[in-house]
Amino acid sequence: MLVGAMPLAAPRTRLRLMKASQFLVSTLKEAPADAEVASHKLMMRAGMIKRLGAGIYNYMPMGLRVIRKVEAIIREEMVRAGAIELLMPVVQPAELWQESGRFQAYGPELLRVKDRHDRDFIIQPTSEEVVTDIARQELRSYKQLPKNFFHIQTKFRDERRPRFGIMRGREFTMKDAYSFDRDKAAALKSYDTMYAAYCRIFDRFGLQYRAVAADTGAIGGDASHEFQVIADTGEDALVYCPSSDYAANIELAEALPLIARRGAPAQAMAKTPTPGKSTCADVATLLGLPLARTVKSLVLATDEIGESGDVLKTTVWLLLVRGDHDLNEIKAGKVEGLKSGFRFATGAEIESHFGCKPGYLGPIGLKLPVKIVADRTVANMSDFVCGANEIDFHFTGVNWGRDLPEPDLIEDIRNVVEGDPSPDGKGVLAIQRGIEVGHVFYLGTKYSEAMNANYLDETGKPRLMEMGCYGIGVTRILGAAIEQNNDARGIIWPAAIAPFAVVICPIGYDRSAEVKASADALYAELQSLGIDALLDDRGERPGAMFADWELIGVPQRVVISDRGLKEGQVELQGRREAEAASVARADVVARLRDRLGL
Amino acid sequence: MLVGAMPLAAPRTRLRLMKASQFLVSTLKEAPADAEVASHKLMMRAGMIKRLGAGIYNYMPMGLRVIRKVEAIIREEMVRAGAIELLMPVVQPAELWQESGRFQAYGPELLRVKDRHDRDFIIQPTSEEVVTDIARQELRSYKQLPKNFFHIQTKFRDERRPRFGIMRGREFTMKDAYSFDRDKAAALKSYDTMYAAYCRIFDRFGLQYRAVAADTGAIGGDASHEFQVIADTGEDALVYCPSSDYAANIELAEALPLIARRGAPAQAMAKTPTPGKSTCADVATLLGLPLARTVKSLVLATDEIGESGDVLKTTVWLLLVRGDHDLNEIKAGKVEGLKSGFRFATGAEIESHFGCKPGYLGPIGLKLPVKIVADRTVANMSDFVCGANEIDFHFTGVNWGRDLPEPDLIEDIRNVVEGDPSPDGKGVLAIQRGIEVGHVFYLGTKYSEAMNANYLDETGKPRLMEMGCYGIGVTRILGAAIEQNNDARGIIWPAAIAPFAVVICPIGYDRSAEVKASADALYAELQSLGIDALLDDRGERPGAMFADWELIGVPQRVVISDRGLKEGQVELQGRREAEAASVARADVVARLRDRLGL
Repeated sequence: MLVGAMPLAAPRTRLRLMKASQFLVSTLKEAPADAEVASHKLMMRAGMIKRLGAGIYNYMPMGLRVIRKVEAIIREEMVRAGAIELLMPVVQPAELWQESGRFQAYGPELLRVKDRHDRDFIIQPTSEEVVTDIARQELRSYKQLPKNFFHIQTKFRDERRPRFGIMRGREFTMKDAYSFDRDKAAALKSYDTMYAAYCRIFDRFGLQYRAVAADTGAIGGDASHEFQVIADTGEDALVYCPSSDYAANIELAEALPLIARRGAPAQAMAKTPTPGKSTCADVATLLGLPLARTVKSLVLATDEIGESGDVLKTTVWLLLVRGDHDLNEIKAGKVEGLKSGFRFATGAEIESHFGCKPGYLGPIGLKLPVKIVADRTVANMSDFVCGANEIDFHFTGVNWGRDLPEPDLIEDIRNVVEGDPSPDGKGVLAIQRGIEVGHVFYLGTKYSEAMNANYLDETGKPRLMEMGCYGIGVTRILGAAIEQNNDARGIIWPAAIAPFAVVICPIGYDRSAEVKASADALYAELQSLGIDALLDDRGERPGAMFADWELIGVPQRVVISDRGLKEGQVELQGRREAEAASVARADVVARLRDRLGL
Repeated sequence: MLVGAMPLAAPRTRLRLMKASQFLVSTLKEAPADAEVASHKLMMRAGMIKRLGAGIYNYMPMGLRVIRKVEAIIREEMVRAGAIELLMPVVQPAELWQESGRFQAYGPELLRVKDRHDRDFIIQPTSEEVVTDIARQELRSYKQLPKNFFHIQTKFRDERRPRFGIMRGREFTMKDAYSFDRDKAAALKSYDTMYAAYCRIFDRFGLQYRAVAADTGAIGGDASHEFQVIADTGEDALVYCPSSDYAANIELAEALPLIARRGAPAQAMAKTPTPGKSTCADVATLLGLPLARTVKSLVLATDEIGESGDVLKTTVWLLLVRGDHDLNEIKAGKVEGLKSGFRFATGAEIESHFGCKPGYLGPIGLKLPVKIVADRTVANMSDFVCGANEIDFHFTGVNWGRDLPEPDLIEDIRNVVEGDPSPDGKGVLAIQRGIEVGHVFYLGTKYSEAMNANYLDETGKPRLMEMGCYGIGVTRILGAAIEQNNDARGIIWPAAIAPFAVVICPIGYDRSAEVKASADALYAELQSLGIDALLDDRGERPGAMFADWELIGVPQRVVISDRGLKEGQVELQGRREAEAASVARADVVARLRDRLGL
């Protein structure tokens, strides 16, 4: 209640029509030069975002509407899955990050700031520390578990090279959730609940996506899935088996040996001149052999570091993959001896151990001891080709056991390729590209242990909480949706996350009373049904008006003109349709409801 | 659509009941020691916020529900008033702030940060620069005006002494809106529209508030109003006239002269010993005179600064207010000669000009020239008392013109007091305390000029946009609402912003099938009506359960017990009511709708 003073105007209680002239429609003919990918170009051209600085964008009114719809779907499904929303601060004291060790361990992506009293703070890139601090204070008893807290909050990661608009920006919005459970079995149940919630969320977005198993890094275990929006322009390679459920990120996807048993030697080993041919492909061509007969050599090194920080001992490693295969560094990092970190060997290390420069390296005739790791397929090869450790020479007809000792280790160290057998034995693998937009991850006790987050079990004994974390890149969804859904004319939004589900384009809104009345009435009808519509009253020429809404990507367009109304008709066109259909004005609402699945 | 892989669980489509056991209800018996005011204490005790660092709080699930309701009301009314929502970044490049001059001018409250490339950024305390940058790019033509952009975003102000919980925190949420108009008349219309929207917003919150005229500082003009929530604990003094519309912040409220015409001298001036009596009150008591016969002397100084930064000349000022009045420094800063900044004079300056230490100063017998400013009331006093510029002596019977020259300036330089005549001539003034939660402000061309934000008028001529800015402290609303509405038992939320409108408290939810069925059914009924209810299934004892919800401040409570159900009754109690009323179970929904004004 206003005490005393006067209101300056009578309250208006009716919600205002959303007319284009009162909104901000701001399209561009050309994308800025720094926009590399379709989504970045189209978001800039459609006026959805506006660059403020490197990797920092204003979310303009048109883009913010999409963000709010994405957030609403996420929020609804998170609550439905039993998660509880709270909000943790953007600016966080460094103390908690020191407690977890991440203040030291996090690289320059962590934006650090000092306040007026010279105390350390960080701008949150994620909130494990703060939520664990909340949990250790609030969750004291097994009776309070499980709990899952989430927030949708501004994040900052000081990317070295921000790019692709809001797909890899520095400031972005993320939904992050954190589950707390009494034991691992309960934690995995929470994980499954989140996995299912994510499926519902991405279903509701109307996007084509894949949930793929992902690497768990130092945590171990197998509970880590990425939710990937499928798009040819995606940065990630998704491996899947079309005839089974198998799906994994290429970092993780297991490569079985392509040769079941090693064949008996058929050739004698020979040193063969291969002048200037330093790649497996060139050597295979020169020798007229399939690339699959060659072996590629990659030289790594590991250092044993003393307490003073000095290198006590360096071990050089030779990793062998078939000529048509690529080393998978994540897998290499799981090999015994390489787990605590490796680097590529220096030129000097290579020369001292192999007596040769890269390009002609191989496992035979080494000058100094080298640890040899053969990929599973390489270990079963016979009569193969490898470098001779001499410039311009390779060995052919090489055979394990006869020409060189058996490898020290046989491991899966390569990326799978299309056509590889599926690890579940149910077919062969295919690969497609994806954009990671979500991640569910079983954390175990990594943070609860570092921060001493205990609860008391039934016997009164303190036990560490088992945690999981679950992220969705809210703003990234927009970029991914556009990468998946666009054409030469612009964006094609799925209806659930479109800025407007319907645009009403009257021809001559200001000239024709009939057109105006019909457009206003249609708008009111759609509004009363809760259909998110916009009425374009800007008075643009039809061509320019249609081009704007095709660029912006509104799913359904209704054109109302005097000519059509004379016949009782309007024109209805879906964004993916090449032509408009004439529809009776009286039927258009029913047709729209039908098309929008309402 | 999920491509390939399996969903791990069947989708649940029904929204989950909001049960206390699945939410986070976390109340405390005692408030932390650093909580000084009721709202801070109660928010901490009710588990609405949780301290993360000085002036930095987690918004816990219970508090976040209130914030979301506040935000929703603001958003609806802003859109209804024609404002367009966007979102500007938290981390902003320093360049724009350098352009406006605020990067240099803003004090240590502005949190500054360097990124990995050592470039300057700020954490936004407000967004005039960014929105002006958007406007100068997007709004090119008079046809696009007026426009009003708003966002609801995290802000940071590095307060030297954060206190009162989220009432004066460092990180907080603010709604800030910015209007752009073609000329001042249009800008003032936008201002009025926002004023009216603010009235609707605060009406909907259900708070007692006052819109008071406020100081416009360097901008000038009279278009600045603060929206103040009335609370005895408020930091601001609100001046109003109970018999008219007049209302102003005490900084601005005009003080009329309390003496219409100066009386003729009746006494001779006399130097009177007043040993040890250095305050007007003590002198008046000693002399047996009303305090209103005394005059208080305040000494200021202004420095003229040369180009090299040296002080070229210092002027000493004597400001005179009646003994029962207080100097208003904002008003003093508007006096000709003091406008470009003043300071209090040093001890040395006072001694050199008055030949005396403070406590016995006055306008008679000065050693060096002093500029004398008399308050309007003082200028009309006769036979008054003032310091004699000699320790332990005052003059009595002093009269302007006879005993000392007329003052150099006669100005309004004091705070009004209760009972002063209203400046509109319609009665006398009253004063109450308030908490500032909103501000509407006409900015003019301050930012558009500094940042060259032009539009083209009908003739194609570039003209500066006229701006206004409009803030509401979203998180501060919570504190203000509680300061206004609390009792010994806890918070009393207005229904519109309560975390839950209704709490259902079953006695024996796990023991009695009847109680459970009735409680669940009531919950479902309320849910179907869109009434925000929570069912407390924690199994707490009734006393503890009721105390929790009284502390949290839920407006309506329904208690369901076997004993009541036998008679077909439940108990209904409003948070402000001392006792519960028995209500037929069949009628309780209608009664709740009635009480909630639905």
